Amino acid sequence: MRPNNRLNNELRHIMIETDFVKHPEGSVLITVGDTKVICNASIEERVPPFMRNQGKGWITAEYQMLPRATQQRNIREAAKGKLSGRTMEIQRLIGRALRAVVDLDKLGERTIWIDCDVIQADGGTRTASITGAFVAMVLALGKLVDNNVLETIPLTDYLAAISVGVMPDGESILDLEYVEDAEAAVDMNIVMTGKGEFVEVQGTGEESTFTHQQLLDMLALAEKGINDLFEYQKEAIGDYAQLINKEV
Amino acid sequence: MRPNNRLNNELRHIMIETDFVKHPEGSVLITVGDTKVICNASIEERVPPFMRNQGKGWITAEYQMLPRATQQRNIREAAKGKLSGRTMEIQRLIGRALRAVVDLDKLGERTIWIDCDVIQADGGTRTASITGAFVAMVLALGKLVDNNVLETIPLTDYLAAISVGVMPDGESILDLEYVEDAEAAVDMNIVMTGKGEFVEVQGTGEESTFTHQQLLDMLALAEKGINDLFEYQKEAIGDYAQLINKEV
Amino acid sequence: MRPNNRLNNELRHIMIETDFVKHPEGSVLITVGDTKVICNASIEERVPPFMRNQGKGWITAEYQMLPRATQQRNIREAAKGKLSGRTMEIQRLIGRALRAVVDLDKLGERTIWIDCDVIQADGGTRTASITGAFVAMVLALGKLVDNNVLETIPLTDYLAAISVGVMPDGESILDLEYVEDAEAAVDMNIVMTGKGEFVEVQGTGEESTFTHQQLLDMLALAEKGINDLFEYQKEAIGDYAQLINKEV
Amino acid sequence: MRPNNRLNNELRHIMIETDFVKHPEGSVLITVGDTKVICNASIEERVPPFMRNQGKGWITAEYQMLPRATQQRNIREAAKGKLSGRTMEIQRLIGRALRAVVDLDKLGERTIWIDCDVIQADGGTRTASITGAFVAMVLALGKLVDNNVLETIPLTDYLAAISVGVMPDGESILDLEYVEDAEAAVDMNIVMTGKGEFVEVQGTGEESTFTHQQLLDMLALAEKGINDLFEYQKEAIGDYAQLINKEV
Amino acid sequence: MRPNNRLNNELRHIMIETDFVKHPEGSVLITVGDTKVICNASIEERVPPFMRNQGKGWITAEYQMLPRATQQRNIREAAKGKLSGRTMEIQRLIGRALRAVVDLDKLGERTIWIDCDVIQADGGTRTASITGAFVAMVLALGKLVDNNVLETIPLTDYLAAISVGVMPDGESILDLEYVEDAEAAVDMNIVMTGKGEFVEVQGTGEESTFTHQQLLDMLALAEKGINDLFEYQKEAIGDYAQLINKEV
Amino acid sequence: MRPNNRLNNELRHIMIETDFVKHPEGSVLITVGDTKVICNASIEERVPPFMRNQGKGWITAEYQMLPRATQQRNIREAAKGKLSGRTMEIQRLIGRALRAVVDLDKLGERTIWIDCDVIQADGGTRTASITGAFVAMVLALGKLVDNNVLETIPLTDYLAAISVGVMPDGESILDLEYVEDAEAAVDMNIVMTGKGEFVEVQGTGEESTFTHQQLLDMLALAEKGINDLFEYQKEAIGDYAQLINKEV
Repeated sequence: MRPNNRLNNELRHIMIETDFVKHPEGSVLITVGDTKVICNASIEERVPPFMRNQGKGWITAEYQMLPRATQQRNIREAAKGKLSGRTMEIQRLIGRALRAVVDLDKLGERTIWIDCDVIQADGGTRTASITGAFVAMVLALGKLVDNNVLETIPLTDYLAAISVGVMPDGESILDLEYVEDAEAAVDMNIVMTGKGEFVEVQGTGEESTFTHQQLLDMLALAEKGINDLFEYQKEAIGDYAQLINKEV
Repeated sequence: MRPNNRLNNELRHIMIETDFVKHPEGSVLITVGDTKVICNASIEERVPPFMRNQGKGWITAEYQMLPRATQQRNIREAAKGKLSGRTMEIQRLIGRALRAVVDLDKLGERTIWIDCDVIQADGGTRTASITGAFVAMVLALGKLVDNNVLETIPLTDYLAAISVGVMPDGESILDLEYVEDAEAAVDMNIVMTGKGEFVEVQGTGEESTFTHQQLLDMLALAEKGINDLFEYQKEAIGDYAQLINKEV
Repeated sequence: MRPNNRLNNELRHIMIETDFVKHPEGSVLITVGDTKVICNASIEERVPPFMRNQGKGWITAEYQMLPRATQQRNIREAAKGKLSGRTMEIQRLIGRALRAVVDLDKLGERTIWIDCDVIQADGGTRTASITGAFVAMVLALGKLVDNNVLETIPLTDYLAAISVGVMPDGESILDLEYVEDAEAAVDMNIVMTGKGEFVEVQGTGEESTFTHQQLLDMLALAEKGINDLFEYQKEAIGDYAQLINKEV
Repeated sequence: MRPNNRLNNELRHIMIETDFVKHPEGSVLITVGDTKVICNASIEERVPPFMRNQGKGWITAEYQMLPRATQQRNIREAAKGKLSGRTMEIQRLIGRALRAVVDLDKLGERTIWIDCDVIQADGGTRTASITGAFVAMVLALGKLVDNNVLETIPLTDYLAAISVGVMPDGESILDLEYVEDAEAAVDMNIVMTGKGEFVEVQGTGEESTFTHQQLLDMLALAEKGINDLFEYQKEAIGDYAQLINKEV
Repeated sequence: MRPNNRLNNELRHIMIETDFVKHPEGSVLITVGDTKVICNASIEERVPPFMRNQGKGWITAEYQMLPRATQQRNIREAAKGKLSGRTMEIQRLIGRALRAVVDLDKLGERTIWIDCDVIQADGGTRTASITGAFVAMVLALGKLVDNNVLETIPLTDYLAAISVGVMPDGESILDLEYVEDAEAAVDMNIVMTGKGEFVEVQGTGEESTFTHQQLLDMLALAEKGINDLFEYQKEAIGDYAQLINKEV
Repeated sequence: MRPNNRLNNELRHIMIETDFVKHPEGSVLITVGDTKVICNASIEERVPPFMRNQGKGWITAEYQMLPRATQQRNIREAAKGKLSGRTMEIQRLIGRALRAVVDLDKLGERTIWIDCDVIQADGGTRTASITGAFVAMVLALGKLVDNNVLETIPLTDYLAAISVGVMPDGESILDLEYVEDAEAAVDMNIVMTGKGEFVEVQGTGEESTFTHQQLLDMLALAEKGINDLFEYQKEAIGDYAQLINKEV
């Protein structure tokens, strides 16, 4: 039995609060159970050096946990003077995932900076970050349309992410919270588009392995969960949904 | 005239929300106008090497602004790989201020870690951090009493901080918001105790100077503002106030 | 048509040369087409601090490309003073993959250090590193058996890795070389065991997406390729295969 | 009784030796009792990026203690690879203080670099640095006048700094030497101009507090001490005093 | 008696394998006994900032040991985040030595990057690096002639390097292998040109000293050894020897 | 003709001022023409980890130039966050040279820290550092004898260093000042003992070479100069000379 009698294919309680912080062009607080992430999107009117003069835009992401987002206090990476491998992996993943649904040519020579700051962690922080960051990005792009900088929001599809896993008893479950994650034999993060295609599939058996059938089971759970997440995203995005370039 | 017709000796709207994040021993979200800081207090059952075997405790603080706490996105210090001078100055100030009202002998060989993370900035982030961190620290120490680790909360007094300044027209004002701070000729941060004594007085005329009379005017404003802040702190602390070692 | 008329399910030319460098306990030069990686395994008679006093061993990996492993010279990470996110991601992957088939309890309190140094790169360096590192690790563990430190080689299975991808024309192909990798719409790295189970499945559509069917096609290709790799590994391992704890 | 029977309002023995090092545009060795600081001023014919194209100059300061300036050898910050918070705080203070009396518009687009290297420390190194650096800066600016680059030395006033403190017995004293500083309940650094206005007031009660009256007593002592320092500065500056833009 | 009955003035077995790695403009694997170094030369069509607009070229070198080049595994400098003093000393030496025989004016505004990566170490890695790098550089420059970028290879002479030393019994020996180096009282590295002139003479008595006569003996041995090395270099360079600007 | 009509074999004006700074166990200001270096020796009652439990001592050196020791201001290495290759080379040289004349067994398990801080540079800073550091070390060791920690000063000989060079006209000269050093075709630093033996011979032809005869000429000049330096050292050391273990 899962905590709170949650079903194997059931998401935790989801909330996406928009305009959480006042300065960013797009700002969201996403809550997934006890996981809470501030996702801010900033527009910068230039691209990094390796992208210059191509007429295309860029999207880059940074991720961080506050020291007491977790049960035990973590040492601040700014104090250590370097990012951990885990942090780098996650911020590369977030940026790559978002780029898969943005039409960078239509975005033009500007950068979208995504900042995901985890203020409370209870499993699934990277997938919550992607799901929330998508909404923050839409809000920021919507402002560019409001200000007549862009004609439409240059997205090709919706995008959300969720974790799935296999427990030691062989059960596949959706949206692992921390106590489940710590026990799981297999941990998988899936990023999908509104059309039901995959952007990222990252499955890992730490000191364990998984079968082809378990992989298929996890993919099915993920698809179900991500479809649920799209509903929360649409509600948060509101009228901006109509400005999105290609409808879902 | 100040923004929102605020009086020269009037604080902005203050809120101190307790138990903002679930994991820390003490957690507060302090709001001062549009400035919002998460203040978390953690208890660690050991002291840094230079304090060992003295039977005394220690308090240390870390401070950070999220990249989009400000109008323009700031580069993350973890990405740059080092803390700015400003950050180091502020975290040293927070720790030093709090240590002035803690009886380190009664605290015993444990460290209180204070984490102040600014999620939205509009002037006065360092003084809001001190005022909020004091409450988070009381909550964390209160839990040690609840758990029978300590008999009382080992504080000698209340502690709060506020900014004051002199505007180009020579007026002294209390609790500067960002647009005022950017214009001010003199900027001063004051930390005081419940007994009305000073812990820190830091006045700076960047490319400017101030007279003895202006200094006295600013001190009077600060005393008024800090007395107001003590009321908010007491309300947030609630019943734990009765466990504080020496009453105000 | 692929370069050199290679079939879609065909590996490049594979060679695993053992005892390539004289000092390490296990040393291999693995060649996959024009990709060449030196994989060295070292035994250290202690474990990292977080593993101490548990009676278990540990496996950790480091990965590096020589500056002229690539067409354009890369800046040396030692000169930059920090590892790139890509390097950290790869070395975490190698270590995690190898740990999945080692019985850490039987290994005892010692660390296996894996060093993968790419001297020539033409696509697939991370999967070649895993495939070669497995052999180097077996050789190093075999020496521990030869020296009567261990009774058997404490492995639970064979392990190898390969890349698969989807080309812009929708074709799925096995073992991408650099020119293919640069064009591919989807890039996936798979790590499997001798029993045909998955250890890692990492599929990424950079600025692209993939369908459920394409995922299945890629998995099938990977399984075929990895089974071929096991033959090369067994030949390289030679008589040590008989010392492996659990037969395939 | 203070060491050497010094009165509470008495400075230590002061010497300001000019042209101490031959290469800098302005060079001073300032001696305050047993505290000795080399203060060098360099002129650079450009400003930092954030100041460009404003027609204004800039002043920046760096501070360092030699490892054996102190009783116990300190680890060199260049060896540690980063500046301590204390060093950053002090160099920010020195630069800010000097900028308060320089007419940056008249200075033009050039930077004055101030280097304060403490070769022997016995308390009061930051205030000695400011007092000495002012003289080095005047000498460097005087050379610009000698070379017809500037018409006058673009200063608005004299500037000097001193420390004051409160001892455990409640006595306020001027110019603390190390043994006094280590015991003091309150430590305050004051920077003032020739006109008797404040530039910086930084008072700190480390694990202690101070009253309004003690603050006033310390300010009075500081004013007396700084007036004495101006005499030493004028003697060191010599004829260049006549080139200073605005007379004291 | 030396290992393998080697004579005091006898080199170890030497091999210089060209085109070892496919991407670099010049690539060599040099083997000196059990010391093996990959030496790659890359041509970059620009010079570092301090050399710009002088019409001259530049040569710079980087050196590294793989972690298991040695008996005990070394910590990777990229992991530590900084180069050791030893590494910096060696890469400065390699670059300086090669620049002594290149006509930088004729090279034109381009940089030759030399990468020396030691894959197996048994003493003499810095001198093997210089000897091998010279050949890699000739091959890279030869390609510039082949491609009609340069008319001749802009070298003024051949260049090779060897170590010599004094053993505790007072014997001077040529080309120390590791076990000899560890015991030697004096260690000297000599770089010479084809004309028999010195480029570098670096003799060191670590916790020991050496006489004038011992210095002369070592120089004579080095000259003999370096003349032998020129024969191996010429064979490796082949027809490119005829393109070298000034013949030996 | 050399500056100031100096003869080719003539040292610049030398002064060795003892007890320059009050805190270190040994402190010297050495002046060689316009080169001035503060050399401090500190005694630490333990050795670095790699030397522990061997009953032997250690000597380590750090070297630094103040930013305005030179004509153009140098960026401070503490600000850059890393030591340059030049600095590391010099501090390794100083430590190695001093260790050659110290009986580390008799020193016992303690470390001598040598700090050489160049306050004014005009060529020859590394050799002046060695010559001055030797004196500072003798003074520090003498105090250990005064305090009955050691019976004698555990040195085996005197030690001094000087630079020599070959000018473009082929003349060999002693003790190069900056303008000569900048022009010289060959630059050599020699460290010798009181018995006339070599500790270090480091000759470099940057973009140039030198003959066997030029090497011999430079060695002869260096021997003459170093014998002169021993006289200055003996005068500075004074009565402590009688406590040195083995007389010259």
